[in-house]
Amino acid sequence: MIKISQRGSSMPSSPIRKLVPFAEAAKKKGTTVYHLNIGQPDIVTPEACMDAVRHADMKVLEYSHSAGNESYRKKLTSYYAKNGIEVSSSDIIVTTGGSEAILFGFMACLDAGDEVIIPEPFYANYNGFAVQAGVTVVPVKSHIENGFALPPIEAFEQLITPKTKAIVICNPNNPTGYLYSESEMELLKSIVIKHNLFLFSDEAYREFCYSGKHISALQLKGAEDNVLMMDTISKRYSACGGRIGALVSKNKAVMETAMKFAQARLSPPSFAQILGEAAVDLPNDYFDATKAEYQRRRDVLIERLNNISGVFCPNPGGAFYAIARLPIDDCDTFCQWILESFEYNGGTVMMAPATGFYSTPGLGKNEVRLAYVLNEDSINKAMDCLAEALKVYPGKTN
Amino acid sequence: MIKISQRGSSMPSSPIRKLVPFAEAAKKKGTTVYHLNIGQPDIVTPEACMDAVRHADMKVLEYSHSAGNESYRKKLTSYYAKNGIEVSSSDIIVTTGGSEAILFGFMACLDAGDEVIIPEPFYANYNGFAVQAGVTVVPVKSHIENGFALPPIEAFEQLITPKTKAIVICNPNNPTGYLYSESEMELLKSIVIKHNLFLFSDEAYREFCYSGKHISALQLKGAEDNVLMMDTISKRYSACGGRIGALVSKNKAVMETAMKFAQARLSPPSFAQILGEAAVDLPNDYFDATKAEYQRRRDVLIERLNNISGVFCPNPGGAFYAIARLPIDDCDTFCQWILESFEYNGGTVMMAPATGFYSTPGLGKNEVRLAYVLNEDSINKAMDCLAEALKVYPGKTN
Repeated sequence: MIKISQRGSSMPSSPIRKLVPFAEAAKKKGTTVYHLNIGQPDIVTPEACMDAVRHADMKVLEYSHSAGNESYRKKLTSYYAKNGIEVSSSDIIVTTGGSEAILFGFMACLDAGDEVIIPEPFYANYNGFAVQAGVTVVPVKSHIENGFALPPIEAFEQLITPKTKAIVICNPNNPTGYLYSESEMELLKSIVIKHNLFLFSDEAYREFCYSGKHISALQLKGAEDNVLMMDTISKRYSACGGRIGALVSKNKAVMETAMKFAQARLSPPSFAQILGEAAVDLPNDYFDATKAEYQRRRDVLIERLNNISGVFCPNPGGAFYAIARLPIDDCDTFCQWILESFEYNGGTVMMAPATGFYSTPGLGKNEVRLAYVLNEDSINKAMDCLAEALKVYPGKTN
Repeated sequence: MIKISQRGSSMPSSPIRKLVPFAEAAKKKGTTVYHLNIGQPDIVTPEACMDAVRHADMKVLEYSHSAGNESYRKKLTSYYAKNGIEVSSSDIIVTTGGSEAILFGFMACLDAGDEVIIPEPFYANYNGFAVQAGVTVVPVKSHIENGFALPPIEAFEQLITPKTKAIVICNPNNPTGYLYSESEMELLKSIVIKHNLFLFSDEAYREFCYSGKHISALQLKGAEDNVLMMDTISKRYSACGGRIGALVSKNKAVMETAMKFAQARLSPPSFAQILGEAAVDLPNDYFDATKAEYQRRRDVLIERLNNISGVFCPNPGGAFYAIARLPIDDCDTFCQWILESFEYNGGTVMMAPATGFYSTPGLGKNEVRLAYVLNEDSINKAMDCLAEALKVYPGKTN
C-alpha cells in the first residue's frame, strides 16, 4: 500500500468547514441556515473595482512580476502611507491571498523544529501553515474574561526556548475581535527585540476597528528587522475570491528570501491585482459606510448575545468576529446539534466551535465564534434561534 | 542579528530570471530583446474566455469552494474525457496554478528527508517546491544525444533507496520538449508499482504534441493509486496570469490529504476559474490553430539552430521548448554576454542557461533552453543574431 506523508496525516482539517454537510442537510430540508460560521462578508464588492477588471485591456493574460505588478506595489505604498505606514514598493511582495503571505513568511524565517508563540485562541489555519513549514505552535493563553487581551509579558517569557523564533499575532484578531492597544504593541516590540524573534503580524482587518486606533506592527520603531506584516484585500474590499494579499517587511534579507519562494510559484493572480489597484483609488470615505455597517451589526450581535441567559460575550474592538461563552457542555456537539436537530421559525444557525481555534486540548469547549457578516435582520433572526435552542439543547449546563 | 531560515538560504533563485537586469539594460540602450528565455506565450488568450470573466455576474467576489467551483470541476471531467482520461469531479482539486498542484502533491505524499527521482534536465522550480517540502531531489540523467529520452530502468533502480518515495516527470517535457512514448510510460508504471512509489506527472503541455500521441499518467491501468497528475490552464489557453491549475488523482487518501492543504489556503482564484470553465467550451478545433502555429515555430527554430556551425538541437516532440548544445565554454557567461555585449541589426537574444535545469553540478554548461513563444519572424531574427554571436563570442569552442 502506498502511503501519504506523516505531514499530510498531521495536517489539521478545517474546523470551520467540517460542519458543512450538516448545514447542507438542513438546507435540503428547507431550513434557512444563518451563516455566522465563516468570514465571508456579504458586503458588495466595490463596483469600481469589478469594473476595473471588466474593462482591463489585456490581449494576453500574462504572468505578472513574481512580486506583483510594479504599478500595484507603488499604489500600495500610498495606501499604506494613508494608514500611517511608511514603506517602499520594494518592501512589498504581492501574494496569493493573505494565506500565501503567511506561508512565505514562515518558509523564509523558520526551519523545521522551530517554535512560534501564538496567543490562543487563534486563526486555525496558522496550524496548517505551521505543519507545512514543520514548525511547532506554542500557544500562550488569552482569556475571555478580559476580552482576550494580550497575555502579560511573563506568560510569553515562560514559553521562550532556544527554538523560539517568532511570535504570531492577528490584529484586530480573528477569532476574538480583540484590537491590540498601543501599549500591548510596545510590549510585543520589547519581547521580540529582547529575545531576537520575528513578529508576524496578520493585519487583514486593519480598517475594521470600532473602539480604538489600529497600530500596525510596521509602526513599531526599532523593530523594523523583526516585523513581517501579512495583509490581504479579501475582507477590506469584500474580495475574498480574488486571492490577493501582501507580505510587507523592511527586513531586506527576509524580502530577498521570500522573493525566491515567490519566484518558484511564478506570479500572483493578474485579474485581482487589477481589482486591488483600483481599490486604492476608492474614495477615502469608502470604509466609513462599511465600518458603520459592521459596527451596527456588532452592536446588535453583542447585545443580543449578552441578553441570553448564561451567555457571555466580550465586546470586540475590531474585525467582524466575536467569541461567546455559552451554557453548553460541548461546542462541537452543540454546533452540529443546532444544524441537525433544531430549527426556529424555519431557520437555524451555523457557528464555528471555538475548540478549533485553541491549540491546548480542552480549551474553548463552551465557546463559539460568530462572524457578523450578515445584515441586522438576519443577525436578529439568528439570535432568536440561538436563544430558543439554548432553552432546549440536551447538553445545556444552566 | 535576526536571521532568515536555513530553508530560505537553501532556496534556489530562479535561473531564468537572474538575467533580467541585463535584458533591461539592453532595452534601455534601445536594443530589441528576443525573449526565448521564458514560457510566456504570445498567443492571444481566447476572447470567449476573457469575455466570460468580463460578463460574470458577481456582486460579491466570494471565496470559492476550497477544491474549486463544483461547476468547473464537473466541466473539467468532460475536458479530460475528451483527452481519453476518465476522472470524476472528486478526483480533482483546482489549484492556484500548476505550481500549487506540485506543492500540494509534495506536501501530501512526501516527508522531510524523503527522496524524489527526477530525470534531468528538469523544470527548475521543482527544486523550489522540494526545498519547501524538505525533500531531496535525486536526478537521473537524460541525454541530449538521444533527444532526452527516458533513462533506462537500470538507471532508475540504481538510485532507489528506502527513502525514495516518488518519481517526477513532466510530459511533454519542460525544458527538453521530449514527449514520452507509450512504452516509456509503461516502463515508469512498472517501476512505481514494483517499488511502491508515487508518480507525479506534470502535464501542463498536454495539447502541444507534434510527433506522437500524449499518454497521460492517469491512463496507466493498475497505477491509479500511484499517480498524481499536475495540470494548468496557463499554457493551454495562454492564461498564465490567471493562476489556475489542478491536482488530479484517483487515490482517495491522497486527495483527502491534499484537500486539507487546499482548505488552509481557503480557495483558488475566482476570476480565472470562470475563464477556465469557459475554456472547456472552446470549439474542438481551438488547439489545431495554436498547435499548428507552435509546430511551425518549432520547425523554423530547430532547422535554424542545426544550420549554425557547431550547434546541435534534437527535434522536440512536444511543449514549446528545446535544449540546444552550443559551441561555447559556459552558458551562463554566454547568455549574459549576448545581452550585455552583443547586438545584431539592433537586436539580441535572451535564452535560459541550461545549467539551471540540471541538478548535477557541471552538466548542461554548453546548453541553453529556448522557448519558441515568439512568431516566426522574431524567431528568424533571433537566430540571425545567435548565429552572428557565436562567430565572435570570446568563449567559443569551435
